[in-house]
Amino acid sequence: RLHAIFAGMNPVDIAGLFEDMDKDSIGQVFRVLPKAIAAEVFAYIEPDEQQLIVENLTDKEISEIINKLFMDDTVDFIEEMPANVVKRVLQNVGVEKRKLINQILRYPEDSAGSVMTTEYINLGEDMTVAEAFDFIRKTGVNKETIYTSYVITPDRKLIGSLSAKTLMLAQPGERVSDIMEKNVIHTHTTDDQEMVAGLFKKYDLLSMPVVDNDDRLVGIVTVDDVLEIIEEESTEDIEIMGALQPSEEPYMKTGIIQLAKNRMLWLLVLMLSATVTGAVLSGFEDALAVLPILVIFIPMLMDTGGNAGSQSSTLIIRGMALGEIESKNLLEVLWKEVRIGFLCGIVLGFINFIRVYLMNGRNAVLAFAVTMSLFCTIIIAKMVGCMLPIVAKKIKVDPAIMAAPLITTIVDAASLLIYFSIAKLIFKI
Amino acid sequence: RLHAIFAGMNPVDIAGLFEDMDKDSIGQVFRVLPKAIAAEVFAYIEPDEQQLIVENLTDKEISEIINKLFMDDTVDFIEEMPANVVKRVLQNVGVEKRKLINQILRYPEDSAGSVMTTEYINLGEDMTVAEAFDFIRKTGVNKETIYTSYVITPDRKLIGSLSAKTLMLAQPGERVSDIMEKNVIHTHTTDDQEMVAGLFKKYDLLSMPVVDNDDRLVGIVTVDDVLEIIEEESTEDIEIMGALQPSEEPYMKTGIIQLAKNRMLWLLVLMLSATVTGAVLSGFEDALAVLPILVIFIPMLMDTGGNAGSQSSTLIIRGMALGEIESKNLLEVLWKEVRIGFLCGIVLGFINFIRVYLMNGRNAVLAFAVTMSLFCTIIIAKMVGCMLPIVAKKIKVDPAIMAAPLITTIVDAASLLIYFSIAKLIFKI
Ligand SMILES: [Mg+2]
Ligand SMILES: [Mg+2]
Ligand SMILES: [Mg+2]
Ligand SMILES: [Mg+2]
Ligand SMILES: [Mg+2]
Ligand SMILES: [Mg+2]
Ligand SMILES: [Mg+2]
Ligand SMILES: [Mg+2]
Ligand SMILES: [Mg+2]
Ligand SMILES: [Mg+2]
Ligand SMILES: [Mg+2]
Ligand SMILES: [Mg+2]
Ligand SMILES: [Mg+2]
Repeated sequence: RLHAIFAGMNPVDIAGLFEDMDKDSIGQVFRVLPKAIAAEVFAYIEPDEQQLIVENLTDKEISEIINKLFMDDTVDFIEEMPANVVKRVLQNVGVEKRKLINQILRYPEDSAGSVMTTEYINLGEDMTVAEAFDFIRKTGVNKETIYTSYVITPDRKLIGSLSAKTLMLAQPGERVSDIMEKNVIHTHTTDDQEMVAGLFKKYDLLSMPVVDNDDRLVGIVTVDDVLEIIEEESTEDIEIMGALQPSEEPYMKTGIIQLAKNRMLWLLVLMLSATVTGAVLSGFEDALAVLPILVIFIPMLMDTGGNAGSQSSTLIIRGMALGEIESKNLLEVLWKEVRIGFLCGIVLGFINFIRVYLMNGRNAVLAFAVTMSLFCTIIIAKMVGCMLPIVAKKIKVDPAIMAAPLITTIVDAASLLIYFSIAKLIFKI
Repeated sequence: RLHAIFAGMNPVDIAGLFEDMDKDSIGQVFRVLPKAIAAEVFAYIEPDEQQLIVENLTDKEISEIINKLFMDDTVDFIEEMPANVVKRVLQNVGVEKRKLINQILRYPEDSAGSVMTTEYINLGEDMTVAEAFDFIRKTGVNKETIYTSYVITPDRKLIGSLSAKTLMLAQPGERVSDIMEKNVIHTHTTDDQEMVAGLFKKYDLLSMPVVDNDDRLVGIVTVDDVLEIIEEESTEDIEIMGALQPSEEPYMKTGIIQLAKNRMLWLLVLMLSATVTGAVLSGFEDALAVLPILVIFIPMLMDTGGNAGSQSSTLIIRGMALGEIESKNLLEVLWKEVRIGFLCGIVLGFINFIRVYLMNGRNAVLAFAVTMSLFCTIIIAKMVGCMLPIVAKKIKVDPAIMAAPLITTIVDAASLLIYFSIAKLIFKI
């Protein structure tokens, strides 16, 4: 009965059921799955439950599942398992697949090689369309995609690609070499996945071939995995911009020790950096002693400066991540930001003047000093905020580091320097 | 000669050439394009250059291009054009297409209806596999995808989907209704594009049918457009989290007035909110007068509090955007963050104590007061940072608003309250 229900369900939804199942029944329920979809369902199950299942299966069952699992899902699974499970799994896969797994595990993290899969259709250039069709019909069931085939030479060099659309619209007697696309957009095993995702987006691809150093076809990346890569890369940037060490583990499944570790480093660095701002303040203790009211505008100046600067850095960092802004745009961006800072400074300064004037005993000189400081702070903040990410990229540092937290700390010190210099000048302290 | 070069190039790359071309030759070069790829190239050209091209074409040429352009690209193009160009374009498309364009333009912004296209393959349930194949061969050239066909009743109700893979592996005599997938993952015209993208990611789809209120098939969304949707939504969140009003225009193509406008609102709101922090400070002027050294730790406390809080809000906001954290997790998250705050507070407090002690005349009492304030600030900041995004979602406000800038402002006031309360207590001021 369960069997019949499962047969009508989407494998992704079946996999979802395992999340809330109690530990003891997971193994049993997995056994009930129709053989034809068991491997596909397994690929969508979360690592914790995958482990419970594998621990409940016999060697023979493991071998059946893993041999049907696509290579990229196999590697994803193995990467999450503890050593004893990995050992047992590797003992139960064929020699060929074991060799491939070990090879893929050696590619750098987040490289094209590490995210590719190896179940693709390869055609010979001398095949006819009819032969190609037959070949696809015969071998296609176990391929990750049959919608693009890759044409290779006998020594596996990639020389073309052929979409199922072209094949379906071609005459049976035509030759593969005559109708294939020769200008194949491809990637190398060591290319970064972010670059790969960029190519998918630019060229609207469904899959992309991955070649090794000798231009031999070794795998393909498919668009469903690219959706995840794009989200992963955005998450990474967002976390770095939020002063966190990035992590791919979901929040709810990460322990508090690990979460605390991911935050500690930046909190420490920024706390110690803020000491500089404290030093600036202590350098102006004399001014504060003469005019204690100056202190109450410090938070407003520091915060507005920080916000103005991080607005700029946010836009620039994201623009660079999307490839819209490049290092060569530095001066153009800087000039833009100076003018934007000017506009924002005028408007905020005007409102600030009125507020300070009305709320602090109609003291126009005080209001003027605070407003001038605000105006200069905003312009400096925008300049710092737009330049640091671009400079970071130039010196091969991740621009995402130059985001709100760091910008705020830098602008804090700058804003206080400006503020007290202007106050000393105006009040002749 | 140009003609031959273009024929061997990828349409995306050809479109890229128009970016750097001088205005006068754009129209001429576009005319040289092989007719078969002109519409596809046009779809990839940036709006500014699209406009220049259309202004250079005759009515007949416009009609040829637009009639071959996929509906989603047509709508994208029309949305970017000034009124006079829109008028001219609409006059030169067929009645049917004009009606469709107007209908799609009426769907809500960022809805499934507004991003779908209308060139899909629909099959009847009584067709045989051979008939379906013939139909696809005959009509497939002008379809956005031929890899999934949709099965509809005579009154256009969606009843199934059929992948080209299933078709290719089936026997010619089998009936579509017997081999089609009946459980079709679909979306409604008014659903948000972010939800659509989530379904693509969850189910690894290449295309998804869009139905109207009567469950009639009206269009499809394809995965290449979903890549862009995912990036657009991440960009939107990143911009909101950076205290910006989100914009879909690329930075380099946006004028400084518009850029300044997008920043002004939040800068103003936050500047005025920081007044509260100023008020807190002025409430403690007496304490500052007695112990002026207290002022130099203010930036460190405010910044560390802000960073600790925005780390938490960053993780929670992103986790909610990816569907990993839900409102019902509030208490679990809060308890996690309190413990993380405790851990971070201990470590930072320890280092801070040593630093303050050594750098400020070995005054252990002062170091203790600052450290206690830091410790409490971090815990409060983590609590505020994780709760506000979740509460925001509960009251249907975008959680992304509860990010660094707002959290910082709130935590600033809290940290000063804590600091001076502790200092007054310890120093008996
Ligand atoms: Mg990874
Ligand atoms: Mg993978
Ligand atoms: Mg694209
Ligand atoms: Mg895959
Ligand atoms: Mg990366
Ligand atoms: Mg990155
Ligand atoms: Mg579109
Ligand atoms: Mg949009
Ligand atoms: Mg997926
Ligand atoms: Mg499209
Ligand atoms: Mg949205
Ligand atoms: Mg959103
Ligand atoms: Mg701050």
